[in-house]
Amino acid sequence: MSRPRTPEPALDMQGDAPRATRNEDDADRTQHSHRMLNFSDALLSIIATVMILPVTHTEISPEQQFDKNIQKLLATRIAVYLMTFLIVTVAWAAHTRLFQVVGKIDDTLALLNLACMMTITFLPFTFSLMVTFPEVPLGILLFCLCVITIGAVQIARSTHRALCRRHVLYIVLRGPALCFAAAGFSLFFYPASYLLMATVIFLPYVNKAASWCRQRLVGPQEPPAHSVEVFTFDLQEPLSKERVEAFSDGVYAIVATLLILDICEHNVPDSKEVKERFHGSLLLALSETGPRFLAYFGSFATVGLLWFAHHSLFLHVRKATQSMGLLNTLSLAFVGGLPLAYQQTSALARQPRDELESVRISCAIIFFASVFQLAMWTAALLHGPDTLQPSARFGGEEHAFMLAKLALYPCASLLAFACTCFLSRFSAAIFHLTQVAVPFIFLLLRLLVRLALRVLRALPGLARPAPYPQDAAERAPLLPAPC
Amino acid sequence: MSRPRTPEPALDMQGDAPRATRNEDDADRTQHSHRMLNFSDALLSIIATVMILPVTHTEISPEQQFDKNIQKLLATRIAVYLMTFLIVTVAWAAHTRLFQVVGKIDDTLALLNLACMMTITFLPFTFSLMVTFPEVPLGILLFCLCVITIGAVQIARSTHRALCRRHVLYIVLRGPALCFAAAGFSLFFYPASYLLMATVIFLPYVNKAASWCRQRLVGPQEPPAHSVEVFTFDLQEPLSKERVEAFSDGVYAIVATLLILDICEHNVPDSKEVKERFHGSLLLALSETGPRFLAYFGSFATVGLLWFAHHSLFLHVRKATQSMGLLNTLSLAFVGGLPLAYQQTSALARQPRDELESVRISCAIIFFASVFQLAMWTAALLHGPDTLQPSARFGGEEHAFMLAKLALYPCASLLAFACTCFLSRFSAAIFHLTQVAVPFIFLLLRLLVRLALRVLRALPGLARPAPYPQDAAERAPLLPAPC
Repeated sequence: MSRPRTPEPALDMQGDAPRATRNEDDADRTQHSHRMLNFSDALLSIIATVMILPVTHTEISPEQQFDKNIQKLLATRIAVYLMTFLIVTVAWAAHTRLFQVVGKIDDTLALLNLACMMTITFLPFTFSLMVTFPEVPLGILLFCLCVITIGAVQIARSTHRALCRRHVLYIVLRGPALCFAAAGFSLFFYPASYLLMATVIFLPYVNKAASWCRQRLVGPQEPPAHSVEVFTFDLQEPLSKERVEAFSDGVYAIVATLLILDICEHNVPDSKEVKERFHGSLLLALSETGPRFLAYFGSFATVGLLWFAHHSLFLHVRKATQSMGLLNTLSLAFVGGLPLAYQQTSALARQPRDELESVRISCAIIFFASVFQLAMWTAALLHGPDTLQPSARFGGEEHAFMLAKLALYPCASLLAFACTCFLSRFSAAIFHLTQVAVPFIFLLLRLLVRLALRVLRALPGLARPAPYPQDAAERAPLLPAPC
Repeated sequence: MSRPRTPEPALDMQGDAPRATRNEDDADRTQHSHRMLNFSDALLSIIATVMILPVTHTEISPEQQFDKNIQKLLATRIAVYLMTFLIVTVAWAAHTRLFQVVGKIDDTLALLNLACMMTITFLPFTFSLMVTFPEVPLGILLFCLCVITIGAVQIARSTHRALCRRHVLYIVLRGPALCFAAAGFSLFFYPASYLLMATVIFLPYVNKAASWCRQRLVGPQEPPAHSVEVFTFDLQEPLSKERVEAFSDGVYAIVATLLILDICEHNVPDSKEVKERFHGSLLLALSETGPRFLAYFGSFATVGLLWFAHHSLFLHVRKATQSMGLLNTLSLAFVGGLPLAYQQTSALARQPRDELESVRISCAIIFFASVFQLAMWTAALLHGPDTLQPSARFGGEEHAFMLAKLALYPCASLLAFACTCFLSRFSAAIFHLTQVAVPFIFLLLRLLVRLALRVLRALPGLARPAPYPQDAAERAPLLPAPC
């Protein structure tokens, strides 16, 4: 990871005696916080994606594919996954912001952090409980209890770090307070509980969107001295780029390996079964699970390449703005749907008529997962010149290359989707061909981009885009660039 | 994470034209490699622990507990887990060393790395296949094919980075060559195949142990110009500390959340079942799964605190020697057994006689997981003064505090085990009491250590250990220290 951003020591604890080894102390402190935050990110990325497991494990045979009940079950599970993903991301963002404020991290804080993490791990379960038993107060009570406990641990942390300023406490306590009210309402009027809980979850995003609209209409405003956004200490303060990367890496790694976990656990052939059903031929037994392996190959390749595009994107930006954070969340949520999509596509590959829908859904999911990455790039471009690295500013080859990387998957999936409309009988072949072609195109992308740029420049009448003055020394299209 | 170690550019690719933005280029390059390596570590830590899933999912009811077949099945699964953990760790170490040699990382390398990762993810499955069908050549062939493919990708990577030196190629190719021979043998004499494959897996460790013995007997030797260790480019070169931390963090995060994954997926009560079996009472339905929640609490708390001790340990060392790496692998392997241990302990909590064995096994697993951490600290102490941070050198309060942190779990588990020998009827109560007490002792540890030190110093006749000269300014026991 790049060097961690050292937070402003404005709210650091006073009273520590100066020490001879202050530099090493600082290095220790930074190392201490960075590793702890990485561990928290790993834990939270696992918890954010946990509800993709019931989705992926929803076995849908070809006959059941159009069964309303199964479709309803799958839709419910997908909705639960998306909501828990959102909830855990909100909790992760709040955690990130609190640590951007907290200066020094010591043992007690690390232990309190573990307690906080454990409480957050209960959010998906309590949410599922609420969805399965919407009218029963117990589900709502348990969910609110989790949020209140998280708030209590945050208070303990802030107290320990002497951060007892009113506005920090106000922000940390607002979510738990709303949940406390929701818990009260659950005993006699549960719709109000759901409204209050939705406020807690969606308010950060609604506020960001409202502020963005306000900025566009009225113009940039001076941030208030004490921001009162729930879970966002300062609306202008972007999330730490390293933590966005760490959280995203966790999600990508989990989703990429989701199907191999199942293969390792359930698809090692049983020796008795191989004797009886396949007359001792292990090869035949493995061929039966062939579609699952194909699904895993495709899933890993796609998720890996989406990670690669994400990684290139973040190499070229200097900071992650809030709109980028939101778009990142949306992209990751769709990435989580890929294992199921590939599984269904491969499972139904033998019945051409049934797989058409699966292929289209897979194309749609890949499209949305990748187009939100492209939107992140656009948001970075629109935010201002200091968001991008100099080498990637508009007009250079690096910029074109970056655009090509991010546009490849949206274009490929759109193309595949369009082809299935005309050549629906060959939808599986089209899909698999796209899957195989895209990695090779990624490998050859730099050459293709250079070719395209030369062709474009050679076309008469097309004016060259005006370069930034400082780019003049850097625009040397024939030199290899690191990324 | 601390600042990444910039590898020696000795084997860097020649021929890049100097660029005006070389500093930013270097920063990009480092950032690029660090994020890619972190992603690889996340992937590999998932794959290393994947075979813990069948172990944890082996449902053993109280009646089955002493059934020989079930015990044999469980023992086989545990053995498969330990072996796949070891295999993936060897692959991870090889990957780490290759990247310590490779200087610059670009797109092609990143894509080749993804291909390498995907191949490594097949190792656990192919190994399980070999274990289930030991005489069938196909299992051995598939495993060897994986290793050969990994070797091929490594060659492609080395070629791309112009690392075609003979000794590097020799090292990279040795494992795949042995596996190629093993694949050949599998067709007519499979025991030879297993011998060759065991050589590939165990040779790095055997060589390390032999070298250590040689050093102790003969004295330190000048390393040969070209080390010919399989997967270890230079026996003297320690593994990158950041990567050991990243890999360990991944394993800790996965093991800590293992049980909540199952709870979220399988233990959300079904609404029909709640109506029929529990007369609509959600609370009763949840009480039935109460033991699983207890198991999760205990598992998370223990793994979290073991992570905390690991993290403190690595704060106080400057580099991770090879013996520390091996001890770390052993510690992590035992950590992976904790979810099963806690699950069994909680499930059998209602039959005092049956749980005694589970409690003892849990104590043994916690003991080994934590004592290997203590052994890591000892290895760091023995390796020499430059392995430790100055503040933790022998004789200071920091050192005592570190020792206390690492000795707490071994002592607590030994104590609990001893108590179950005398008070076997209360074994569950003893175990749960220990589980609850240890986190609080961690919180109060600094106070307790200071008390103990004062008592020790007040005792007449006990000489103070001679401090290092540079510690004199730092030994101020009453000042709070960051860790």
